[in-house]
Amino acid sequence: MIQYFEYPHPFELEQGGTLPCLTIAYHTYGRLSPEGDNVVWVCHALTANSDVADWWPHTVEAGAFLDPDRYFTVCANILGSHYGTTGPLTPLPPEGRPLYSRFPALTIGDMARAHALLADHLGIGRIRRLVGSSVGGFQALEWAVQQPARFGSLALIATDAKASAWTIAVDETQRMAIMADPTYGEERPDAASAGLAAARAIGMLTYRGPWGYNRTQTDPEGLAPGAVHRACTYQRHQGEKLCRRYNAYSYVAILDAFDTYDIGRGRGGLEAALATLTMPATVVAITSDIIFTPAEMRLLASRLPHAAYYEIDSDMGHDGFLVEHEQLNRILREPYE
Amino acid sequence: MIQYFEYPHPFELEQGGTLPCLTIAYHTYGRLSPEGDNVVWVCHALTANSDVADWWPHTVEAGAFLDPDRYFTVCANILGSHYGTTGPLTPLPPEGRPLYSRFPALTIGDMARAHALLADHLGIGRIRRLVGSSVGGFQALEWAVQQPARFGSLALIATDAKASAWTIAVDETQRMAIMADPTYGEERPDAASAGLAAARAIGMLTYRGPWGYNRTQTDPEGLAPGAVHRACTYQRHQGEKLCRRYNAYSYVAILDAFDTYDIGRGRGGLEAALATLTMPATVVAITSDIIFTPAEMRLLASRLPHAAYYEIDSDMGHDGFLVEHEQLNRILREPYE
Repeated sequence: MIQYFEYPHPFELEQGGTLPCLTIAYHTYGRLSPEGDNVVWVCHALTANSDVADWWPHTVEAGAFLDPDRYFTVCANILGSHYGTTGPLTPLPPEGRPLYSRFPALTIGDMARAHALLADHLGIGRIRRLVGSSVGGFQALEWAVQQPARFGSLALIATDAKASAWTIAVDETQRMAIMADPTYGEERPDAASAGLAAARAIGMLTYRGPWGYNRTQTDPEGLAPGAVHRACTYQRHQGEKLCRRYNAYSYVAILDAFDTYDIGRGRGGLEAALATLTMPATVVAITSDIIFTPAEMRLLASRLPHAAYYEIDSDMGHDGFLVEHEQLNRILREPYE
Repeated sequence: MIQYFEYPHPFELEQGGTLPCLTIAYHTYGRLSPEGDNVVWVCHALTANSDVADWWPHTVEAGAFLDPDRYFTVCANILGSHYGTTGPLTPLPPEGRPLYSRFPALTIGDMARAHALLADHLGIGRIRRLVGSSVGGFQALEWAVQQPARFGSLALIATDAKASAWTIAVDETQRMAIMADPTYGEERPDAASAGLAAARAIGMLTYRGPWGYNRTQTDPEGLAPGAVHRACTYQRHQGEKLCRRYNAYSYVAILDAFDTYDIGRGRGGLEAALATLTMPATVVAITSDIIFTPAEMRLLASRLPHAAYYEIDSDMGHDGFLVEHEQLNRILREPYE
């Protein structure tokens, strides 16, 4: 069940803006142990919500790495998102109206500080394991650097410690598609829906990659020229589906935030920052991931003082982290380092 | 120097449309030998033109595989394109106006038949080598199947014999970006320029891939949050550049055409069609190409009766075929099979 934490004070943002107050939407699964030593915190990816059991199949179940009989799992919807936490569509004082495209610029540092506020509010001290998949890994790494003593271990899945030129280019292309829709800027929740649909379709390309599409969207033999291709229907469907559940302003706000990420900024560089993370870390790449490639993740693991590196063997690309739950559970089940 | 062949008869299209007449723009380099045995025909990719020496650096020069002292190289601008051959912006009888988005649907078969018309017009019988890079390879394979006796050998670079689910998904995403711009459909050459820019940026992602972007567009260390990323500037620049030299209607027309491609349609399937191509073929993949992957091209080579398979070692992705001219010239220089 979704829950809300209302933080009634101004929340200063890293890039200079201020939110007059903060709502953080979150889910929990399982029960906090009397010793308080069974907390697992999950940081979600781009357009996901705080309901891990909904978007990450077969993880919050008996025997899985978020087994609710063993762990107290918490996930908070990220700042700027569409699912209950303060974002561009949230009515805000003093005007009581949403800020839409005037919502202040966010960083991953802001998102991590919001997670910490919620943890404090819930009376959670130490977190046994901090899990981040995809850009959830940006938040996990950032929070771990902000409060290293808080975390027993890290699980970093299909992610990195810095936005790469490639991921920034992908995000900029999505922004270009959104801005090609001149309704972007109109102060209504469904503005720029054609642009948002195209942006989502761009995202999907990078989530699935060539092997994923060829495996799942290949046309039947001998399709007539002019007939509708399965891959076209799929792209349009994915675009429309996101438009029904998300909004262009949140989408741009979080893309912008992820593009700013560099764990090493203001900390003497990336390697120095990663060297401070001395807790055990499990780093998991997907063989066919073209967003966060295995080579990049091996490098990340090599820069963390106590990391073990694993690969999920899959042709589903980045989406492998959502699809290959059996391999993932095998890697992430205890006893973990 | 660009030349034009005017074909004054109706040209029937595979999907049922008819063009009342045809203009084909082309370039030639070198001189036809008295024996007429030195013709190399180049089929160009998506938004290129007939000026091979312009878009394919270090190929039309002494010692290279299109050495103008040795070969008579011909390249024709493809049907539907923006560079002189009949396309959506060409004024057509009876109204003397361009058809824009009402331009009839094209196929690769149509493009290949237009190439054959030009070859006949130029008095070219046998073609020593037919070269196709990227979707130029679709045309080369198609023409080779249409007139197998015409060709001495094939050079197929970063291509395939069929549009894959992946390439169709990439193209559909580009169409979604173009259509997100509501000026698409307006009957002017610069309609949908914001959409076209976004589409081009999508294309660039697939041409360069993760390794290409990370190599060339990585920000300097410690860039402040909120500062403009190099990768963003690059994507916008690439989009704007295409808008200055191309048009959205041609872009959609040729994307649609490439998506229809399946060499095996109406020919008993892909393997049967490829088995008819008994001339020697050189198949060249690029190690980091995410459009036409090495695995896919190895399969293509294995289905051609007399193919030799090579890989260009590059992190520049699909664009490796334009960039890695040294490796390419080494592979494609005579004596070739």
